[in-house]
Amino acid sequence: MNETELTSVSKNQSAILEYVFEKCMNHWKSADSRDNPVLNFKTPSELSSLVDFEISNEAVDLENLKKLCDDAFRFSLNTDNPRFFNQQFIGPDKYGVAGEMIVAAINVNAHTFEVAPFFMMTEIATVKKCLDLFGFSKGEGTFCPGGSYSAMMATNLARYRKCPDLKTKGNFGSAPLVLFASKQAHYSASKNAALLGLGTENCVEINCDETGKMIISELEEAILRTKKKGSIPFLVIATAGSTVLGSFDHFNDVADISEKYGLWMHTDACWGGSVMFSKKYRHLCNGMERSDSIAWNPHKMIQMPIQCSILLSRHEGMFAEVNTTIAPYLFQPDKQYDVSYDLGKKLIQCGRRSDSVKLWLAWKANGDGLYEKRIDKAFDNAEYLTELIRKRDHFRLVIPKPQFTNISFWFIPPSLRNEDENEEFWRRLSLVAPAIKAKMQKTGSLLVAYQPVEATVNFFRMIVINPRVNHKDMEFVLDEIEKLGSDL
Amino acid sequence: MNETELTSVSKNQSAILEYVFEKCMNHWKSADSRDNPVLNFKTPSELSSLVDFEISNEAVDLENLKKLCDDAFRFSLNTDNPRFFNQQFIGPDKYGVAGEMIVAAINVNAHTFEVAPFFMMTEIATVKKCLDLFGFSKGEGTFCPGGSYSAMMATNLARYRKCPDLKTKGNFGSAPLVLFASKQAHYSASKNAALLGLGTENCVEINCDETGKMIISELEEAILRTKKKGSIPFLVIATAGSTVLGSFDHFNDVADISEKYGLWMHTDACWGGSVMFSKKYRHLCNGMERSDSIAWNPHKMIQMPIQCSILLSRHEGMFAEVNTTIAPYLFQPDKQYDVSYDLGKKLIQCGRRSDSVKLWLAWKANGDGLYEKRIDKAFDNAEYLTELIRKRDHFRLVIPKPQFTNISFWFIPPSLRNEDENEEFWRRLSLVAPAIKAKMQKTGSLLVAYQPVEATVNFFRMIVINPRVNHKDMEFVLDEIEKLGSDL
Repeated sequence: MNETELTSVSKNQSAILEYVFEKCMNHWKSADSRDNPVLNFKTPSELSSLVDFEISNEAVDLENLKKLCDDAFRFSLNTDNPRFFNQQFIGPDKYGVAGEMIVAAINVNAHTFEVAPFFMMTEIATVKKCLDLFGFSKGEGTFCPGGSYSAMMATNLARYRKCPDLKTKGNFGSAPLVLFASKQAHYSASKNAALLGLGTENCVEINCDETGKMIISELEEAILRTKKKGSIPFLVIATAGSTVLGSFDHFNDVADISEKYGLWMHTDACWGGSVMFSKKYRHLCNGMERSDSIAWNPHKMIQMPIQCSILLSRHEGMFAEVNTTIAPYLFQPDKQYDVSYDLGKKLIQCGRRSDSVKLWLAWKANGDGLYEKRIDKAFDNAEYLTELIRKRDHFRLVIPKPQFTNISFWFIPPSLRNEDENEEFWRRLSLVAPAIKAKMQKTGSLLVAYQPVEATVNFFRMIVINPRVNHKDMEFVLDEIEKLGSDL
Repeated sequence: MNETELTSVSKNQSAILEYVFEKCMNHWKSADSRDNPVLNFKTPSELSSLVDFEISNEAVDLENLKKLCDDAFRFSLNTDNPRFFNQQFIGPDKYGVAGEMIVAAINVNAHTFEVAPFFMMTEIATVKKCLDLFGFSKGEGTFCPGGSYSAMMATNLARYRKCPDLKTKGNFGSAPLVLFASKQAHYSASKNAALLGLGTENCVEINCDETGKMIISELEEAILRTKKKGSIPFLVIATAGSTVLGSFDHFNDVADISEKYGLWMHTDACWGGSVMFSKKYRHLCNGMERSDSIAWNPHKMIQMPIQCSILLSRHEGMFAEVNTTIAPYLFQPDKQYDVSYDLGKKLIQCGRRSDSVKLWLAWKANGDGLYEKRIDKAFDNAEYLTELIRKRDHFRLVIPKPQFTNISFWFIPPSLRNEDENEEFWRRLSLVAPAIKAKMQKTGSLLVAYQPVEATVNFFRMIVINPRVNHKDMEFVLDEIEKLGSDL
């Protein structure tokens, strides 16, 4: 066999590793420059003609491999650019990237202490720190492959608490189990309802007030209606930082209702949970500590490389009750160490990435204080932008007082400025954000998301995370949108 | 704010990245040496006293961060060592690691073409290549966070095909839906049954013959019994390379039964699917191409960094039917490109790692031919080991003709050699593998798993993957086990 076969790292592999590493370092050195475009947009067919994506049977030589690695950077977004405001992630914390390198290099499965001793300990330490952060005096937690997965696990815990027999019997003989989430909650609530055999019809959407918070009286009415029909309310999902409007539910009120009717309270804090670092803003989560479970995604506001999601539960030991089945080839009881460190035993996953490592390393490196500063700075920028929009002609806030660092607004282009605000006005306004977005993609000068909410037509939604963003960037956003929309 | 705040990569971050990268490169340069131990075992409490795992509120300085990175290597397994035979993974393909670095550096969510154009294209290209590899002339596929997740998606597809209404209504009104998997199938079959509201009781385990293959007549009987009870058989899970014994089911027979009774056939080829690369061994999977879905884990035999799992389905378009709900903030219909490239729309996950990139890059770099050689070499080593065991006193095969590169055997220590093989003999033999395993962990000279199967007491299970393993290593394994067990 050739050299690749017989050594742990061949010459060509070393060459690619060195090349990619240097590429990353060089990329980051200029990634925060506002002069580099956020993106170099190509359509799928353009991209296909520029890069040889197809995998043939033959190996590609070193020079062509390097070219493919170059292309990955060339045609990907520069999420480190301070003008990337599109979504709830940005360029990664570089300590987190170092953590990812360690995980990839060591390559063990995060299921047993036997094969992943160090990574089991980082997971235990990180979960403990998270329990503290979220004010759970006891409990358990686990890293999950994404926030939807965390919500899925929580839904399963909630069902188990209400009807433990269903683990063995299935839902078939049961009256319908019903969960509740606001209209602004993440779409995983309904996807998980379908997946877990509950049905999307049994995921009841509760209306929100004009700030995007769940209306508690409507939650209670929905629970009572459900009971009256003979169905079983078992779960309410509250949201800390909703995806579009950045709303925080009234957690104490949700907790009161949950207790009154015996529902599991899960809080989706995937996006907003990071405010717990800030003395100034953590009040937004008051009452969240009364949740039965909380999901938080450090891959959002605190910049961990995707994926990094945590599920916390206050009910210590329930993970194992819900999930354990027998796998004697993996979880031998007669091991030479305390098998409670075999974390995989109590989970649904068998093969698992060690997602704790990056957060553990980055948190050690940054300390709580740096996260607090980052959160406060993001709020400061978002508040500044809100103020700018309020004052500026032709821009209009979708909700008058944004609670978080999501800022939603319309831009009224010249052709609509003297029109009556009738149906036709709104129809035409709905076309404005997509048209400007297409121009953003063409120029690469910034990237901001748009979407409608219920009856509200397409608007821009800014997400402010990046600590390198300053007030000038906020001004730039409005100037640039005005410029790109000047002929509309 | 300090420097960390204001640049994409700070001095300390650069220092850690450089340090970790060098650490990885140095690690790999000697990782394949048989003189370095496979592991440096510490119990959880020993490890706690050696490493400061706890995350305090304060940031750790650069020197201490470096020490923590050192410790991660020092106290983790060296899975590159050719004497690591413990499980279905080993040290990573280094091209795969380069892919992981690219993914971590660019850090975009693999849900839309808008934010992950390059990675959407690598996913599409890699899925296409996998469809070819597994002989699906059409179909679709997706990367999943692990094999259990792939099986979960397959179970959901199967349910949807049988009873599409349950997506909205849930399982509540339905007669029980029943799935079938062999006793040697992966434990995710039963975990997923619990999760999807089917119930573990409705996951029926079918007996296997002495080689670990599902007994087809018993499958058919179980289906008939289920129908007679008024339940609905909907899914059979076949296995290509079972976890413990490495068995391949009779796929054509399973497919015949599936067609006859209208069941979805899912094949768990997470471990064994890699034999498709080998002209000599792919016959083991004959008939597997008749499956409705197949799961394959490139993070097992072809050494992709964990996690790398693929689900393929021959039913193009069904992912979207099963999983799509509305998320207008992400999947806007009025985008400026063909939105069929927004792969996340048809999945359950929202946040997703770009797991395709490492496989795409490594496959490009290695070509099919190298994988074929690796598979063939692993078989050659495994067959050599089998022959050694057959010939050697005091070793005994658990199944006479292993089908794959899992080799299961007992070692009979001196104290048991002249004993009658009665109940007491087997009880005492069951203690031998754990005792020798503990010694392996102490010496670090090799690592081999052990487990019981049903009524069969603890035995060693060798997993041969590493292309650097040679016949001498196979001899070493038996010599070393004999040595470590000489006083038992």
